[in-house]
Amino acid sequence: MTVTVPELTDIEAARARLDGVARVTPVYRSETLSRLVGREVQLKAENLQRTGSFKVRGAYNRISSLSAEQRAAGVVAASAGNHGQAVAWAAREVGARARIYMPQDAPMAKVEATQNYGAEIELTGPAIEECLDAAQDYVAETGAMFVHPFEDPLVIAGQGTIGLELAEQVPNLETVIIPIGGGGLASGIALALRSAKPCLRLVGVQAEGTLPGGSGYTIADGIAVKKPGELTMSILERVLDDFVSVGDEEISDAIVVLLERTKLVVEGAGAVGVAALLAGKIPGDGCAVPVLSGGNIDATLLISVARHGLAVGGRYLVLRTRVPDRPGELAKLLTLLAEERVNVVEVEHQRETAGLPVAMTGVELTLVTRDAVHCDEIVQTLGRWGYPAERLG
Amino acid sequence: MTVTVPELTDIEAARARLDGVARVTPVYRSETLSRLVGREVQLKAENLQRTGSFKVRGAYNRISSLSAEQRAAGVVAASAGNHGQAVAWAAREVGARARIYMPQDAPMAKVEATQNYGAEIELTGPAIEECLDAAQDYVAETGAMFVHPFEDPLVIAGQGTIGLELAEQVPNLETVIIPIGGGGLASGIALALRSAKPCLRLVGVQAEGTLPGGSGYTIADGIAVKKPGELTMSILERVLDDFVSVGDEEISDAIVVLLERTKLVVEGAGAVGVAALLAGKIPGDGCAVPVLSGGNIDATLLISVARHGLAVGGRYLVLRTRVPDRPGELAKLLTLLAEERVNVVEVEHQRETAGLPVAMTGVELTLVTRDAVHCDEIVQTLGRWGYPAERLG
Repeated sequence: MTVTVPELTDIEAARARLDGVARVTPVYRSETLSRLVGREVQLKAENLQRTGSFKVRGAYNRISSLSAEQRAAGVVAASAGNHGQAVAWAAREVGARARIYMPQDAPMAKVEATQNYGAEIELTGPAIEECLDAAQDYVAETGAMFVHPFEDPLVIAGQGTIGLELAEQVPNLETVIIPIGGGGLASGIALALRSAKPCLRLVGVQAEGTLPGGSGYTIADGIAVKKPGELTMSILERVLDDFVSVGDEEISDAIVVLLERTKLVVEGAGAVGVAALLAGKIPGDGCAVPVLSGGNIDATLLISVARHGLAVGGRYLVLRTRVPDRPGELAKLLTLLAEERVNVVEVEHQRETAGLPVAMTGVELTLVTRDAVHCDEIVQTLGRWGYPAERLG
Repeated sequence: MTVTVPELTDIEAARARLDGVARVTPVYRSETLSRLVGREVQLKAENLQRTGSFKVRGAYNRISSLSAEQRAAGVVAASAGNHGQAVAWAAREVGARARIYMPQDAPMAKVEATQNYGAEIELTGPAIEECLDAAQDYVAETGAMFVHPFEDPLVIAGQGTIGLELAEQVPNLETVIIPIGGGGLASGIALALRSAKPCLRLVGVQAEGTLPGGSGYTIADGIAVKKPGELTMSILERVLDDFVSVGDEEISDAIVVLLERTKLVVEGAGAVGVAALLAGKIPGDGCAVPVLSGGNIDATLLISVARHGLAVGGRYLVLRTRVPDRPGELAKLLTLLAEERVNVVEVEHQRETAGLPVAMTGVELTLVTRDAVHCDEIVQTLGRWGYPAERLG
């Protein structure tokens, strides 16, 4: 196979193949985001795609294009996440066997989801590099086809179908904001839209953590790729107007806004476009459409992110105070708080606390609060009651 | 106004009024739920409606039917939640003034959302009863119209438009599962569908906590109404096939499944249909459609529910063990856990723990785990390392 840049006709062919298979995901105008950002914001809810991410578009376009003989040999992929689930799902749809190599400590939820789509799972490890090696060995042994997550014109053309949908769904489209990991999604969408609407602004967003000089870590694990591929980069350099990057704090904030205000669960990689908008990093004032590329965020991570976001917004208050070391004193404090209609979520009683008089016991409380003003009020009220309180978060 | 039961033509008229105003919310087939329940499950994602719940349908149908004179006098409602937001939003859409009475301790997120739709907010309280009284006083003073959340044919007809959409969106519809609080949603949908598709099974779901004999509390605050209204009950008794009820544990479980598997944020009231399906309380084997009535769950509650659901599923492990009371011993234990790739989310060091030898310190750890088997493995591994561990959750 010669690796060539897909044309508009390839993306249109992909759309025909995906018809009735992948979902045409909805676009929602978000009133809250439009107000916060000061321009119209519409969200492409690709997190509601089958398997929870855009990856089924490319994977299905690739796998459904195999000959009967190739299908019989099966397909193989190496992935801890969305690509693995998509290959498993697409293979099942066309009746091909799929083998997915996943890192040893992949979250069980992802392993199970991939298994439920009918794939054989091999946990290899510890990291993705070993999975890639194992997948190549499997190709050599069995003749199965290795499905690359982005360096493949058919995969790129599949992802590009999102661009065709956007051109129809948002007539006043001015700016499209697309997450960049390997670059397959951004390449596909940009190729589709450059042909359909040449005057658009197309912006790619990367995670700061995995850029050169970054911490090496990001909560946007779906785009935690050191750099785009050779093919995708050659496309992106030509068709994108801007590259911007966002940090994990900005991404967390975007995840919480999407969760609370739009009722959508969006993973870190899927939230980078909204993060860039909220951080004022996207120029222009016309209608902006961030592509919410996926929703497969681990629930334990989602909880941590949401707690952090709420604490920053004054919706949790963690404080340390002290009560006399006598029976009933902690109960008395909690009763006073209950009378003020303050919801206590955690109590930690510290018998032996440095710096406190012998007859006193330290208490650490986590409270649900309304906002920053409410936090201040509670600290003052506690002081008036004789409980000097120190804020911890 | 004579209170009469709305006819199909009233619901069709409501649909015409709502065209281009309310969203036609999407329906999603959920592969995971279909597998778990053993029948086809499609979700009516009304949580993605404007303002985050179905309430805008009824409120807009009511308020847009006012005469110019009535509009000029404004509208008023008493609500801690979805109804207040919907009335505020609908009033803004038609250019009427809205006053919403909310209980004093309503979550700030809801107060702000209602305010952002342009309503005047009055915090009254402490509870909804005082808000209702204040709203009636306001009606007497100003001549504004009180918008009832369910005992109103125009409100019921507005909610019924969901039924018309379902009849078109799901051709093989067999069972529709609808949350019941005041009963406006279930009345409207049932009236619409009984005319369009007489052979359907229509099931209403209530929250156990607020039924007679219940605890008086439910996490499904959107349907925490002691019983439906007189008008709605007269309709429901005639048009529903079954009433079932679900408990908070079942509702929590449904919220977590919807969050993790369908990427949708659904509030307690909106999750009761899925809860009833998962609990095996819905008879039949054809295509079942729970109406996800809203997504306005307080983020702090969502976090608590998700943590509880994950702990039950073995995705968190809370345990107590002990380390020698010497510098570096806790660090040693944490390093060993890190080498096993176990993620520690909380550590509590208890200097003085009853029942431990003097030279030992108690440690409470919260770990992120893969599943119940992984939990058992960790406890055993800790034992082999010389840290006898007791599970706390």
